[in-house]
Amino acid sequence: MAVSLRVGIAGLGTVGVGVLRLLERQAASLALRAGRGIEITAVSARTRDKDRGIDLAKWQWFADPAALAVAAEIDVFVELIGGSDGAALAAVEAALGAGKSVVTANKALIAKHGLRLAQLAEDHGVALAFEASVAGGIPIIKTLREALAGNRVERVYGILNGTCNYILTRMEMEGLAFADCLREAQALGYAEADPTFDIGGFDTAHKLAILTSLAFGTAIDPDAIAIEGIETISLADLEAAAELGYRVKLLGVAQRTPTGIEQRVHPTMVPKSSAIAQVMGVTNAVTIDADAIHELTLAGPGAGGEATASAVVADLSDLARGQNMPPFGLPVAALAPLQRAPIQMHEGGYYIRLSVFDRPGAAAAIASRMAERNISLESIMQRRRPGTKPSAKPSGQGDAVPVVLITYATHEKTIREAVDAVVADGYIAEKPQLIRIERE
Amino acid sequence: MAVSLRVGIAGLGTVGVGVLRLLERQAASLALRAGRGIEITAVSARTRDKDRGIDLAKWQWFADPAALAVAAEIDVFVELIGGSDGAALAAVEAALGAGKSVVTANKALIAKHGLRLAQLAEDHGVALAFEASVAGGIPIIKTLREALAGNRVERVYGILNGTCNYILTRMEMEGLAFADCLREAQALGYAEADPTFDIGGFDTAHKLAILTSLAFGTAIDPDAIAIEGIETISLADLEAAAELGYRVKLLGVAQRTPTGIEQRVHPTMVPKSSAIAQVMGVTNAVTIDADAIHELTLAGPGAGGEATASAVVADLSDLARGQNMPPFGLPVAALAPLQRAPIQMHEGGYYIRLSVFDRPGAAAAIASRMAERNISLESIMQRRRPGTKPSAKPSGQGDAVPVVLITYATHEKTIREAVDAVVADGYIAEKPQLIRIERE
Repeated sequence: MAVSLRVGIAGLGTVGVGVLRLLERQAASLALRAGRGIEITAVSARTRDKDRGIDLAKWQWFADPAALAVAAEIDVFVELIGGSDGAALAAVEAALGAGKSVVTANKALIAKHGLRLAQLAEDHGVALAFEASVAGGIPIIKTLREALAGNRVERVYGILNGTCNYILTRMEMEGLAFADCLREAQALGYAEADPTFDIGGFDTAHKLAILTSLAFGTAIDPDAIAIEGIETISLADLEAAAELGYRVKLLGVAQRTPTGIEQRVHPTMVPKSSAIAQVMGVTNAVTIDADAIHELTLAGPGAGGEATASAVVADLSDLARGQNMPPFGLPVAALAPLQRAPIQMHEGGYYIRLSVFDRPGAAAAIASRMAERNISLESIMQRRRPGTKPSAKPSGQGDAVPVVLITYATHEKTIREAVDAVVADGYIAEKPQLIRIERE
Repeated sequence: MAVSLRVGIAGLGTVGVGVLRLLERQAASLALRAGRGIEITAVSARTRDKDRGIDLAKWQWFADPAALAVAAEIDVFVELIGGSDGAALAAVEAALGAGKSVVTANKALIAKHGLRLAQLAEDHGVALAFEASVAGGIPIIKTLREALAGNRVERVYGILNGTCNYILTRMEMEGLAFADCLREAQALGYAEADPTFDIGGFDTAHKLAILTSLAFGTAIDPDAIAIEGIETISLADLEAAAELGYRVKLLGVAQRTPTGIEQRVHPTMVPKSSAIAQVMGVTNAVTIDADAIHELTLAGPGAGGEATASAVVADLSDLARGQNMPPFGLPVAALAPLQRAPIQMHEGGYYIRLSVFDRPGAAAAIASRMAERNISLESIMQRRRPGTKPSAKPSGQGDAVPVVLITYATHEKTIREAVDAVVADGYIAEKPQLIRIERE
């Protein structure tokens, strides 16, 4: 059997320890699959002495990840430090520059610097692999890069953040408010103390930027993503969605349009019967629409130490077999610049929830603001708040009642103008809620 | 750019023509991905003149696929002839023996001769790839063989036959009888004139045999599969399933058990809320339970010219990049003999539908036959046939009424004995229906 692939790992959190465990557990099978062993030779972490339930003594220790990255003892540098810049970036650059292949789970790093790092890898004839950076244990990078090579992709979309999906699932199932579910998710370790990165949609955007590049052969461009988080989603939205046959999910969506590639992250109404609507809790899922395969959906664990480690080990297994393909499928020079389709041009259905003062003429005014822009309504639902009675006041402000509209496909710009006009008419008590609808 | 990969295709049905189309449509992208072009150089089919909507004049023609298989003009032989033996087998053996890599969509061939062909490929240092042989456009082979290399698989199961799933879906949705749905599927081209191979579960068994080998690192063994088809599934079963929170799917299941690997194909009750239960119509889906990733589900097109062609092209793209790994993940010599766990040892819940003569003592007799074998019942449902009245006869046979039992986990052998005992008691009007329950 050929000489082993020598691996150095920087970062020994749950994923790093997971990688050490899987490589040990599957050592014999991995060696048979690749025709050579995969051997850890050196490790690096912030502290050496922390109890990780694993004995570090058998591997060489590097206090400095950048020193590990260029060490003679390794062929592959596994970066599990995290963060888009700083130590992670420095070490990865050093490794690639020294002719070491790199495996990373770092979505922020790849989203921000992936293109430059891919070029560096190409220049040095080494690999840069990042299966673990998107959707944890789901092999979505391999699927887009290898399995769908014969396809032209039209759209890729998915649930890419388990924290958000957990919160939305709990809100729907238990009828709990957003803030309560967020606190619960934090207590369970599903959400960070500062949850902005997850619930604001930024984590999903990083992952989407990577998927977009692989799906469409375009240069990665995270700044071209329209991002909205789930902070504004209320129980009223989930209840109205359920009644109308929808569920609310935070989706990342990238699709071809006549004006370019549209990339967006936002809460989305999906038909309850769709595959993506069935994905509950911390599970992730990605659906790809492409010409030859029509629709393919992968669902599985989006996070977790061993699930993410499984993706890192798959990359190492590919490297051990000698795989070295362009990180984004195509050589960097062949990636097309991303022609951004602005969100104002987005075309689709919309859910609009308005809090309308219950007074004569309100409904007619809303309907006419839609009609004058040729917006067709699929449904309209007005409900008195439970426990209230019809306003007895003959005129004046009246009580506010919720009105929910579902539109047929229209343009974002048009729907925004219509809603602004409704607000300007003075019938609206609160900021209107707009949620885009995604069809299968 | 390096010299092109030269491909010969034998068999120009819908999949073959799909491969020709995709290779043409994606030529530029495929060449960039692999660093070399993928070029058709020669083709073979039963007749040359048939109108396929594609001009064959630009490729060399071989009337004999076995001659194409060894032709100097090709590096890779694509076998789309079909059939486990005969021309397909002869041509594949010839190609591998001549040092040509082989790509095939032929599940029957791989299920029956895969091990020997893999050895032949290894001996000649060439590849044998068969992504298209299981679940059409779903990259399940690549996922098991490459993406899950760091996992120990516990169970793999799926909906692997679109014809059966279409029929079961139509029965459930439209309340149609099995025979009517089968005729409809035949009219739509989803089922063959002789549908035995599909509805009898044999097609699913071929695919399962391949997945089992990849999932567990065992020698392929299609004869070790317990097979039941969907012919006996009635509307009464689907209705009872719905009422009890289940759906009926034809599943192929392979799982580790204490006594070995259990392989079985049969109609199965799956919880309505499970991912696999959502898979409707001709769509296929495969779920893998493994230690690191817990659960991963892939759903997509199980058949269709271009979807299956997509898998063939993915294999060709891998070959163009120089990939050559053992066909079943591990070298043939390292595949363990399959230790078969007999179906009599299967442990799980059961659905039992009995047609019981409505006379005193029947229910008590059934219950005691179960109890004396320590079979616990999760639910019992007895319904009078619509429009009938309780029997007025004081004794004698009485009318037959349907009784449905759901058991907790028990052994196949035990449940069969219990049902035989109930039959022997003389209370049963028709052959009892037994359907295994699969939990998530």
